[in-house]
Amino acid sequence: MTINRQWLLARRPVGAVSRDDFRFHEAAVPEPADGDVLVRTMYFGYDASQRIWLTDDGGYMPPIQIGEPMRTMGIGQVVDSRDPSYAVGDIVAGFMSWQDYVLVRGDGPMPLMVLPDAGYPLTWNLGIFGVGGLTAYFGVTDGLKVKPGDTVVVSAATGATGYLAGGIAKALGAKKVIGTAGGPEKCDWIVEQAGYDAAIDYKSEDIGARLAELCPEGVDAYFDNVGGDMLDTLLLHMAPRGRILICGAMSSGYTDVQMQGPRNYMQICTQMLSVQGILLPFYRDQLEDGAKQLAEWVVNGTLRVEEQVVSGFDKAPDLLPTMFSGKEPGKLILHVSDPV
Amino acid sequence: MTINRQWLLARRPVGAVSRDDFRFHEAAVPEPADGDVLVRTMYFGYDASQRIWLTDDGGYMPPIQIGEPMRTMGIGQVVDSRDPSYAVGDIVAGFMSWQDYVLVRGDGPMPLMVLPDAGYPLTWNLGIFGVGGLTAYFGVTDGLKVKPGDTVVVSAATGATGYLAGGIAKALGAKKVIGTAGGPEKCDWIVEQAGYDAAIDYKSEDIGARLAELCPEGVDAYFDNVGGDMLDTLLLHMAPRGRILICGAMSSGYTDVQMQGPRNYMQICTQMLSVQGILLPFYRDQLEDGAKQLAEWVVNGTLRVEEQVVSGFDKAPDLLPTMFSGKEPGKLILHVSDPV
Repeated sequence: MTINRQWLLARRPVGAVSRDDFRFHEAAVPEPADGDVLVRTMYFGYDASQRIWLTDDGGYMPPIQIGEPMRTMGIGQVVDSRDPSYAVGDIVAGFMSWQDYVLVRGDGPMPLMVLPDAGYPLTWNLGIFGVGGLTAYFGVTDGLKVKPGDTVVVSAATGATGYLAGGIAKALGAKKVIGTAGGPEKCDWIVEQAGYDAAIDYKSEDIGARLAELCPEGVDAYFDNVGGDMLDTLLLHMAPRGRILICGAMSSGYTDVQMQGPRNYMQICTQMLSVQGILLPFYRDQLEDGAKQLAEWVVNGTLRVEEQVVSGFDKAPDLLPTMFSGKEPGKLILHVSDPV
Repeated sequence: MTINRQWLLARRPVGAVSRDDFRFHEAAVPEPADGDVLVRTMYFGYDASQRIWLTDDGGYMPPIQIGEPMRTMGIGQVVDSRDPSYAVGDIVAGFMSWQDYVLVRGDGPMPLMVLPDAGYPLTWNLGIFGVGGLTAYFGVTDGLKVKPGDTVVVSAATGATGYLAGGIAKALGAKKVIGTAGGPEKCDWIVEQAGYDAAIDYKSEDIGARLAELCPEGVDAYFDNVGGDMLDTLLLHMAPRGRILICGAMSSGYTDVQMQGPRNYMQICTQMLSVQGILLPFYRDQLEDGAKQLAEWVVNGTLRVEEQVVSGFDKAPDLLPTMFSGKEPGKLILHVSDPV
């Protein structure tokens, strides 16, 4: 009998997520029923939203229950199918979980997407063509409506979304794109590798003073991935009629702890700012167009693709906490198996 | 010699503003220099923003200094003019201060507007055609973009801005307009007099429960005049892609005390909300159009005009604290003299 390795949620994390919130388990490979697709997992993508799914209410998705395998965006190969839309051998992407084998309803609310052999690494479907890349794309183009001449700031600028947001803003003609990150190495990377014009090291620099110096006329568009004090500081440095995108709140760690609201939010009133949220499912019908534009920018060298691919099913829970600490730039991906 | 009565700022208020923050003074009537216009004041309008001007940094305007007469929006009559744009006898509106006589630069950054004899009460220039009415107009039409079928909530719905915001939303075809206010009398007034469909008494009712009951599909547009816990509650009841207008933060009293930021602001992200600020000077070039539309709605009975006009120069500082407590519905105005 083939063993299905799993990482189950052992306890609901309080505060920062830890590898000890999960426990290893071995189960039998599930038997597909009518309408089911059995997938052997190949890659797991790491997203900050996974921490939200671990809270009591799960945020915008059902919470993961104790004893259930941890949910993830993933790529895998169909090994058995009772749904005519999926054939054995198909490479698919979508919501999976930390197991060797996942059973997915072909007609469920979160169907798998069959990936064509597109001539680029499969992992790109989790990164630049996944949640991070598409969120950066729609956030910058539609949410912030970045236009030529804009001064743009992106926080968590080495993250899977942030590094692309800066590149996309430059592609749209932004005059100056500034990223924030922690530590000199990451700051160097932003400017030297991700095409940003300048970086602010939030760990060692006075962010307000640096913004005043770099953006004397104020910030036209701010792509917020972190919330907290950073958002409050940016609120004080926005140009009149500036735009803010609320994309994430990494500084909160997405725990159940009460969020810190932006205390300077009345700047929205007095500077007549626009604040826009973004959640990818709202762009359901435009995802393909977004991916096409991103692909064009990658092909012509406007955007680079940055990934950190780690191997080994046993490492699944270790990587999650690094989402919130000092991980390397770009998209974090775990490789768990190869296609047959 | 004619005496110029004044109410000067005696000390910078800490917390809620009090009548004791001002002191009475008698001065000589100032002598106009070249380019000056001398105005005898007739009406003072009361605006929540006056509290902001009393803070150390003044917010979006220069702060009022200790020993200076308190700034106000006002109406008066030109009694001496050294500026060819203003004639003796003209009735004018604009930034004035709590004095019998104010000296204004005709070409200054805040010029006076000469009021035509328009066949309606002069006080309307401080209310429906003043900051409150025009803020309601641009807030509902441009900021919130209220459209037919919308479910709209307005907080501080008996205020000079709030009562009109609800009426304007109805005029634009909103399906349901709900106001919040303190106490059963005000709640009755909102529904019976201001054209709202329903009211929530924030002093005695569970706002969240009432919103869930009245807006089962969520709130499409929220006109926020109060901030604080109300804004946080509304954030939990917005419809996907809902719009919020940040117009005021009455609950804060506009003191120097650190504002309470909206702790549920990540709903902006997960419901993909739009949050828009409003400050009337940004609509400088459209004010006339706004006033025209408002006048049309008043003439055809769509909007009612509600004012509380109190008489007596000596009452000027007494009325300011009532902006933040239990004043009567509509615009609060002090009458200080009649035209000659």
